[in-house]
Amino acid sequence: MMFFKGNVFHTPSYGELVYLEDALIEVDSQGIIQEVYVSADEMYAIKLQEAKVCDSFIELKEGQYFLPGFVDLHVHAPQWPQAGIALDEPLNQWLDECTFPLEAKYEDVAFAEYVYDNLVENLLARGTTTALYFATVHLQASLTLASICATKGQRGLVGKVVMDHPEMNPTFYRDESTKAALADTEEFIIAVKELAKEVPQGVYPVVTPRFVPSCTDEGLRGLGELTHKYQVHVQSHCSEGQWEHDHVKERFGKTDTEVLRDFGLLTEKSIMAHCNFIDEKDGAIFAETGTAVAHCPISNAYFANGVIPIKRLKNQGVEIGLGTDISGGFSPSLWDNIKQAVMSSRMLEDGVDVTMQQESRGVSDSRISVVEAFSLATQGGGEALNLPIGVIKKGYVCDLQVLDMNAVGASLSGFGVFTTPKEQLQKLLYLATPTNIKQVWVQGKLVHEKA
Amino acid sequence: MMFFKGNVFHTPSYGELVYLEDALIEVDSQGIIQEVYVSADEMYAIKLQEAKVCDSFIELKEGQYFLPGFVDLHVHAPQWPQAGIALDEPLNQWLDECTFPLEAKYEDVAFAEYVYDNLVENLLARGTTTALYFATVHLQASLTLASICATKGQRGLVGKVVMDHPEMNPTFYRDESTKAALADTEEFIIAVKELAKEVPQGVYPVVTPRFVPSCTDEGLRGLGELTHKYQVHVQSHCSEGQWEHDHVKERFGKTDTEVLRDFGLLTEKSIMAHCNFIDEKDGAIFAETGTAVAHCPISNAYFANGVIPIKRLKNQGVEIGLGTDISGGFSPSLWDNIKQAVMSSRMLEDGVDVTMQQESRGVSDSRISVVEAFSLATQGGGEALNLPIGVIKKGYVCDLQVLDMNAVGASLSGFGVFTTPKEQLQKLLYLATPTNIKQVWVQGKLVHEKA
Ligand SMILES: [Zn+2]
Ligand SMILES: [Zn+2]
Repeated sequence: MMFFKGNVFHTPSYGELVYLEDALIEVDSQGIIQEVYVSADEMYAIKLQEAKVCDSFIELKEGQYFLPGFVDLHVHAPQWPQAGIALDEPLNQWLDECTFPLEAKYEDVAFAEYVYDNLVENLLARGTTTALYFATVHLQASLTLASICATKGQRGLVGKVVMDHPEMNPTFYRDESTKAALADTEEFIIAVKELAKEVPQGVYPVVTPRFVPSCTDEGLRGLGELTHKYQVHVQSHCSEGQWEHDHVKERFGKTDTEVLRDFGLLTEKSIMAHCNFIDEKDGAIFAETGTAVAHCPISNAYFANGVIPIKRLKNQGVEIGLGTDISGGFSPSLWDNIKQAVMSSRMLEDGVDVTMQQESRGVSDSRISVVEAFSLATQGGGEALNLPIGVIKKGYVCDLQVLDMNAVGASLSGFGVFTTPKEQLQKLLYLATPTNIKQVWVQGKLVHEKA
Repeated sequence: MMFFKGNVFHTPSYGELVYLEDALIEVDSQGIIQEVYVSADEMYAIKLQEAKVCDSFIELKEGQYFLPGFVDLHVHAPQWPQAGIALDEPLNQWLDECTFPLEAKYEDVAFAEYVYDNLVENLLARGTTTALYFATVHLQASLTLASICATKGQRGLVGKVVMDHPEMNPTFYRDESTKAALADTEEFIIAVKELAKEVPQGVYPVVTPRFVPSCTDEGLRGLGELTHKYQVHVQSHCSEGQWEHDHVKERFGKTDTEVLRDFGLLTEKSIMAHCNFIDEKDGAIFAETGTAVAHCPISNAYFANGVIPIKRLKNQGVEIGLGTDISGGFSPSLWDNIKQAVMSSRMLEDGVDVTMQQESRGVSDSRISVVEAFSLATQGGGEALNLPIGVIKKGYVCDLQVLDMNAVGASLSGFGVFTTPKEQLQKLLYLATPTNIKQVWVQGKLVHEKA
């Protein structure tokens, strides 16, 4: 047994903020939360005695808080070196001249190790305890990423990327053939499932067609079959920007969402990045199949040509989490994406072009609160992945961030005026920097500690 | 004499990126740059010898860069305790229930000292070497802010806020009368000019009507007269949101811009916050009078109901800089506002509502580059204030930030792939955190050093 004692913020359901003062979290040897006690509970005093004599008792100081670890639903791991680079270029140039040549380098496994090691450390240091990764088309380098997650203690869901369409991908960077793409994917799934047997926090293989345009019909069909054969997670991009939206409609006469569904790629364990252009009918398909949206607000400001209507989709019952989309999004931090999710939703509500009438320039009732955005990064991510993560309660995994409002050189004061727990959380969500993240725990194991 | 040696990034004019490799900056005892030498210069070797034996020789290491200090054109100093708080509330509630009660507290000078001390330190630690502040209506607390800037070595431009309209301001927080507002403003101007005599980096009084709706005609007229009598800077808000825009039109039958001009408040040394709703005619008045815009992109996402067309205004010849607008904007960092300026401009270009046709939902040709946004935070701010700051060249003041890409726990690697100076700058602009800001210098004096 181990115990964590301190103030807790989390959202058991979307937008439902719960604050537990001086809670006592009991965690078993597998890293699963056995119970969360508050001082009003009969057992609190007894358990506190037990905690004080147990091997592992973590007690927070004044101004420190436990938050759930963040769940990043969309990371292109190989693009980490490129974070922040060339975002002023048009999308096709950004892809052809920067991104694809960079991804092609991961044929070199040593390079992959060099980058992935640094990336996983950077994400952990920002409180990201679970990440859903696109790797590259390369089988070996993709396995390397899964191993690094395993070793560093992050819960990693990793996909070997499939880009098998001979005309839609650069000759220097694509799968050799549809057959090879499917064979490599199957080999990857089997290898990661083998690796997972020895990884307490979990590591998962993910079926990963890059997006519909980069895959053949046969490739997509084959990936749908592998999904069902192995019951694994699926990730892709869906209706990100205007070009993709229009291109898929032209090729198939239906929406991205319908195409993915019809190839068997939308399941309870499917996560689709962006989805800015999905309409109400598509939204219903998401809700019905249990497919989740990975909302990547920073990336979308650059490449999406519009803002996803989070509020409308939540009202339709769609599962939504947050993603950094490194490196379409420059930031490795979900903290930054929480803020941008709020801002983008407000810009959707208010519109942008002041020469238009106020009534017609935005979409009324679109804003989300910062607590709702915090939900997306935690509970929403867990729901999307169908894993017991993102909430601090019995039966869930003990993934925690310890936030410190009094960190040296980064203190966040309310100056005696703004001192309620809810105000403190708002200060954290809006003003915390990586310096305020004191510790990060995954499955009850310390994986990052601020020097 | 003192010398600074290292790689330099700056923009001598809007969007014009200049990189100087291993430059040698010679600074006189007043903190003014005497010359900037590069290795191709004849005098470089001689000056380097001189530097090596002088009292003060600051030499950067590999991966470190000199950038100009940032110029924050819009800070509500008293709102610092409230940064990040209650941004989900409607604007009027945010003002009436949080902001005005908070500002009213600065009648207590001890509270003002407590907050302003912390604020100025936080801004300096983020590279803000010059700041244009709204204080409160209180004469004493406003003087306290000016003194703290003077002492801590920041170049502060400070305004005692005027809110003299008896019906448009809360009874608990406003000037006692128009006469008192004008008398206090004049006393404030004289006192700060007196203080300035002993402040090397400069401290300046600023005529500060909160915004047109909060002032009487007589108050605005009197402030215009003080502006011309003392030749001081002017700041206010202009056409921020839909309500203000419509309200002023109704009261005066003309735009905010025209009203401010007609009261004598638009000069070479005027800076107006936000300006999201100014039209082409207003823009021409800005350009003609030399009035500058303080663009506050983070704040605007919450309260502006639209995005200012930066590119159109720059093409009209309007001077523009950046502001944090603490606490309408949650962040004390112009680094964050640089990124948001880029993102908001792209969202203006692409539009937000995907149910509209692509052609009509955005404003084409609106995006600005990250280098242009960097210009706004530096050279643009200097131009706005009519001060020789924001550029690293002869005759300008030596205000520098030292950025460190290899800071412990915050290294920004290009992994051997992205290594050109321009790429390094992009990494800095998009990924640097306060930990990467190693030192900050104002007028040749060290004012912040990372522990
Ligand atoms: Zn992506
Ligand atoms: Zn303001």
